[in-house]
Amino acid sequence: MEQLSKNKIFDGWHERYSHQSRTTNTEMTFAIYLPPQAADKKVPVLYFLSGLTCTDENFSTKAGAQQYAAKYGLALVIPDTSPRGKNAADDESYDLGQGAGFYLNATQNPWSQHYRMYDYIVEELPELIEANFPVTNQRSLFGHSMGGHGALQIGLKNPDCYAAISAFAPIVNPSNVPWGKKAFSAYLGKDEKTWAAYDSSKLVSQMKKAQPILIDQGLADNFYPEQLQPEVFVQAAEANGIDVILDLHEGYDHSYYFIASFVEKHIAFHAHYLGLRKEV
Amino acid sequence: MEQLSKNKIFDGWHERYSHQSRTTNTEMTFAIYLPPQAADKKVPVLYFLSGLTCTDENFSTKAGAQQYAAKYGLALVIPDTSPRGKNAADDESYDLGQGAGFYLNATQNPWSQHYRMYDYIVEELPELIEANFPVTNQRSLFGHSMGGHGALQIGLKNPDCYAAISAFAPIVNPSNVPWGKKAFSAYLGKDEKTWAAYDSSKLVSQMKKAQPILIDQGLADNFYPEQLQPEVFVQAAEANGIDVILDLHEGYDHSYYFIASFVEKHIAFHAHYLGLRKEV
Repeated sequence: MEQLSKNKIFDGWHERYSHQSRTTNTEMTFAIYLPPQAADKKVPVLYFLSGLTCTDENFSTKAGAQQYAAKYGLALVIPDTSPRGKNAADDESYDLGQGAGFYLNATQNPWSQHYRMYDYIVEELPELIEANFPVTNQRSLFGHSMGGHGALQIGLKNPDCYAAISAFAPIVNPSNVPWGKKAFSAYLGKDEKTWAAYDSSKLVSQMKKAQPILIDQGLADNFYPEQLQPEVFVQAAEANGIDVILDLHEGYDHSYYFIASFVEKHIAFHAHYLGLRKEV
Repeated sequence: MEQLSKNKIFDGWHERYSHQSRTTNTEMTFAIYLPPQAADKKVPVLYFLSGLTCTDENFSTKAGAQQYAAKYGLALVIPDTSPRGKNAADDESYDLGQGAGFYLNATQNPWSQHYRMYDYIVEELPELIEANFPVTNQRSLFGHSMGGHGALQIGLKNPDCYAAISAFAPIVNPSNVPWGKKAFSAYLGKDEKTWAAYDSSKLVSQMKKAQPILIDQGLADNFYPEQLQPEVFVQAAEANGIDVILDLHEGYDHSYYFIASFVEKHIAFHAHYLGLRKEV
């Protein structure tokens, strides 16, 4: 691991690293915020998965999350959204290829060689984090848009690994919306049966149990409801006896201004299920 | 005025506008955050002056200030740092020309035609804001780095116009540090006597009265103490019987991570002198 930068914020440290990933077979970058409590003891980790076009830096600089991580005493880990660099395949559009990994393991050429973000997020990155930083193996998971899709489908398939799941404006049924159909066709192929393993609305209808789940959606979001259909997820969950908190917000859009407005609520939600209390 | 964007954040509205400025004789851009209280009544305005290379967007997206503006019920106005565009002169370096207006009225060619940021900030912009938005004529002023210099020298010269002054890592004695010497030589000419009107440490030693003044400085700031010498300002102020709060912070650098960590403190400071109380 190579440290790229280190900045003090809210009495903790926001650090960026790059490392050679065995999973994606590329160099990968991530950010970690270590709250002040981590100077004295191990703290749980809340992973944030970002949306299309983002790197780790969007959430790190725009969400205002560090102050709440500091108040509750949890670390934030913010991965990149795809493999990068000239070795990894790419596409000219913003919603496929670099910056658009969709948190899955691609099976199709030219993507399958490097686009293995599911395994990277679920296996390699937590191992790296837990081996190198003052953190416990308690994990929780949230994300935005494509990263909300990542948080939901990863969390649902790994109920014992993540204390809770939450999402801002998530893609919940990628098999049935334009972003998901384009990405899944490319990464997973035309056989839609293979898509179900990464479709949160299908997964939640089959799970015997799930963690607490929270979703916030802005009603002035340009992508709602064409790409973002949280009601579909909630209906599938409720039909299977799984409870979901869905809050809709008049006037809020898809931007980080929306995320910033509700990030305290999400961090408090995860902190509760990680057994943490706000330290005033 | 043309509205460029409008985003809901913390129950208020963050809006960007461009307008043709009679002062700079260019198009100018600014952002305004109207807190939820502005829907019902006029609110005071806190102006933020940004540092070298910034536009209005750095503070707007990275400082996390809107939540505190909403808590206290004040509007934020964030101007650009210089005239822009092909009509305005420029320089290849980051610390002169576009993005580096230094909040003064240039007297030298090629700058004097458009670089009149002092008059823009003190006269034209407040007139525009007070004529077009639900705000009172109560003003307060803060800034970062070059914008800290702007806040101090503008505030000191206009004690009846701004309730308080505060700064993150300000340039306080531009006549004696590299950034200031370069900019003042270009904008104001080689005669250093003309520089004193924009040198906060000289101004504060001559003022009969001053508003409450707060300065925060990170001790891990790469530009401290070569470019940033808050102690010089405090000594000049104290020798003249003017009180300054100067807080130094171990580990903090020059970035917006530093600003975000202390922005609540600054907004609370201005709110107090604007007669506002936090609305929980």
